[in-house]
Amino acid sequence: MSKRVLVLYDSITGNTKKMAEEVAKGIEEVEGVKASIKHVDVAKPQDLLDFDGLVVGSPTHCGAVSWKLKRFFDESARIAWNKVKGKIAGAFSSSGGLGGGNEMTLLSILSMLMNYGYLVFGLPDYSGPGVTGHYGAVAVGKPGHLELEVCRILGRQIARYVRAMSYRE
Amino acid sequence: MSKRVLVLYDSITGNTKKMAEEVAKGIEEVEGVKASIKHVDVAKPQDLLDFDGLVVGSPTHCGAVSWKLKRFFDESARIAWNKVKGKIAGAFSSSGGLGGGNEMTLLSILSMLMNYGYLVFGLPDYSGPGVTGHYGAVAVGKPGHLELEVCRILGRQIARYVRAMSYRE
Amino acid sequence: MSKRVLVLYDSITGNTKKMAEEVAKGIEEVEGVKASIKHVDVAKPQDLLDFDGLVVGSPTHCGAVSWKLKRFFDESARIAWNKVKGKIAGAFSSSGGLGGGNEMTLLSILSMLMNYGYLVFGLPDYSGPGVTGHYGAVAVGKPGHLELEVCRILGRQIARYVRAMSYRE
Amino acid sequence: MSKRVLVLYDSITGNTKKMAEEVAKGIEEVEGVKASIKHVDVAKPQDLLDFDGLVVGSPTHCGAVSWKLKRFFDESARIAWNKVKGKIAGAFSSSGGLGGGNEMTLLSILSMLMNYGYLVFGLPDYSGPGVTGHYGAVAVGKPGHLELEVCRILGRQIARYVRAMSYRE
Repeated sequence: MSKRVLVLYDSITGNTKKMAEEVAKGIEEVEGVKASIKHVDVAKPQDLLDFDGLVVGSPTHCGAVSWKLKRFFDESARIAWNKVKGKIAGAFSSSGGLGGGNEMTLLSILSMLMNYGYLVFGLPDYSGPGVTGHYGAVAVGKPGHLELEVCRILGRQIARYVRAMSYRE
Repeated sequence: MSKRVLVLYDSITGNTKKMAEEVAKGIEEVEGVKASIKHVDVAKPQDLLDFDGLVVGSPTHCGAVSWKLKRFFDESARIAWNKVKGKIAGAFSSSGGLGGGNEMTLLSILSMLMNYGYLVFGLPDYSGPGVTGHYGAVAVGKPGHLELEVCRILGRQIARYVRAMSYRE
Repeated sequence: MSKRVLVLYDSITGNTKKMAEEVAKGIEEVEGVKASIKHVDVAKPQDLLDFDGLVVGSPTHCGAVSWKLKRFFDESARIAWNKVKGKIAGAFSSSGGLGGGNEMTLLSILSMLMNYGYLVFGLPDYSGPGVTGHYGAVAVGKPGHLELEVCRILGRQIARYVRAMSYRE
Repeated sequence: MSKRVLVLYDSITGNTKKMAEEVAKGIEEVEGVKASIKHVDVAKPQDLLDFDGLVVGSPTHCGAVSWKLKRFFDESARIAWNKVKGKIAGAFSSSGGLGGGNEMTLLSILSMLMNYGYLVFGLPDYSGPGVTGHYGAVAVGKPGHLELEVCRILGRQIARYVRAMSYRE
């Protein structure tokens, strides 16, 4: 039976949305794993229970996850908090500037996900010279081709982790 | 002329509210500095410009600042972002458990405030054996008298910093 | 074949060492998983490759991992960095005070481990009223019985994760 | 009487050193403030007491401050910890890749400095399109001219803060 990974995102300018699409592509490249993409406005708490893995993408707002995504996780806690052990999760973020908080935003996402009970990870891999994703994928402004390749690496990596994990309480 | 510090908070159970009141008491103990307390539901972006210092208190929700406070800062950015240089800010948080994310919540607050342009600080001081506030004041559940004393230390400290700072662009 | 988890720690006063011993006990409670304990002074870079899981414990020094543990990971990078994908890791820390940086120390450990390529996690679980380990186990001063129970929960949890993971590049 | 700011750094490849020099230039552009530069190998704990401000620069090693700088602050605690209230501090870091941990390194530095008692800050300012320093100055590989300009902005900003602060216990 296929494993399933949700790419959950918020986006204002479209940059984070573009990253979400590439993450999903990376996931689908891995046999036996399916991706779904949902904007935070339509996601439901139950989604956190239904999917085997989760990648959360946010624009960098004040160096942290957008308030809509924060509200989603605050309000989903009643349904899904401490019910996601053994599920894998990752993060991505787009910012307006280098040094503008995209890694801090990843940290705020990963921290929230660990709090829920997810296993989280980063990518030692580089997509090319000087572009990596040690805490998830990042982009400054419109993501370039190396940044989008990191998004696909992120997708492939979570798909492989999800496929390799057979945790039961 | 008096300097003024705003204590801005969110609270569900009343624990963070109690901490806010003690922070305000600490501020008022310092001559020449006045405190105001506002719940996030009534605060306005303009407040960030009007006050010389800011202490932000949040319950620990998923190990980070509450979504209402995040929304306040996301939405106030248009008015106040990069217009608070030289202003001082600090943080406090109440959590349900030791190891439950109250320091991570302080970090999420301080990160957001640095992003705006505030100078932020912690407290090396101890209020008694084994209780301090290196990144701001914390409490686990209902704050005890040593935790409330850290709140007052936080208030006195920001008041002294605000009084000592005479920054102009 | 048994899976193996390393408990790697630094300790000055003995508090973090005590926590390391309890984490190891928790690991050994899970069938099919073995624990080893090593002080940072005797650990080798190769250990990171040899073990299936890793729990790193540090006293809280300036709100972050001790310099000896940081040196170990900085210097082991040549051998083990980006060669630990699919391995699971967690953290624990002892501090001198509540609000004194034990969660910040966990964050500095988890961040370092994600950088290497580990999957990291926290514990939604409580060991009793008001004591949990959302980013790993913490203690203030000499760890009490609830804090030691969180250490054992941490050990059991990583053992179960390691057992359930069958990742290959 | 002049105020004095110390630029304390570690560097392997020379990139962080180059940034240190630019930070110092920015400091010296502000009337009434002098800069000194010291490599971590020659800095002394007493320096933390002697200077009015401090900017710490580290290469990004495992997404955090280098172990030599960590050792410096761990070992200087006995002399200078909780004796720097009212002093201002900032951070800068060079990494091998975008998304490679330079902001996480800034966070590890700022966290350590807050722990000591410093007031810390970031820069809302941009040096040009897409380059800023919300948690301090960063560079990926050899710093370009916009990244070096952020270093100078950082230097000028701390100099102005130090000049404007007249804190006494």
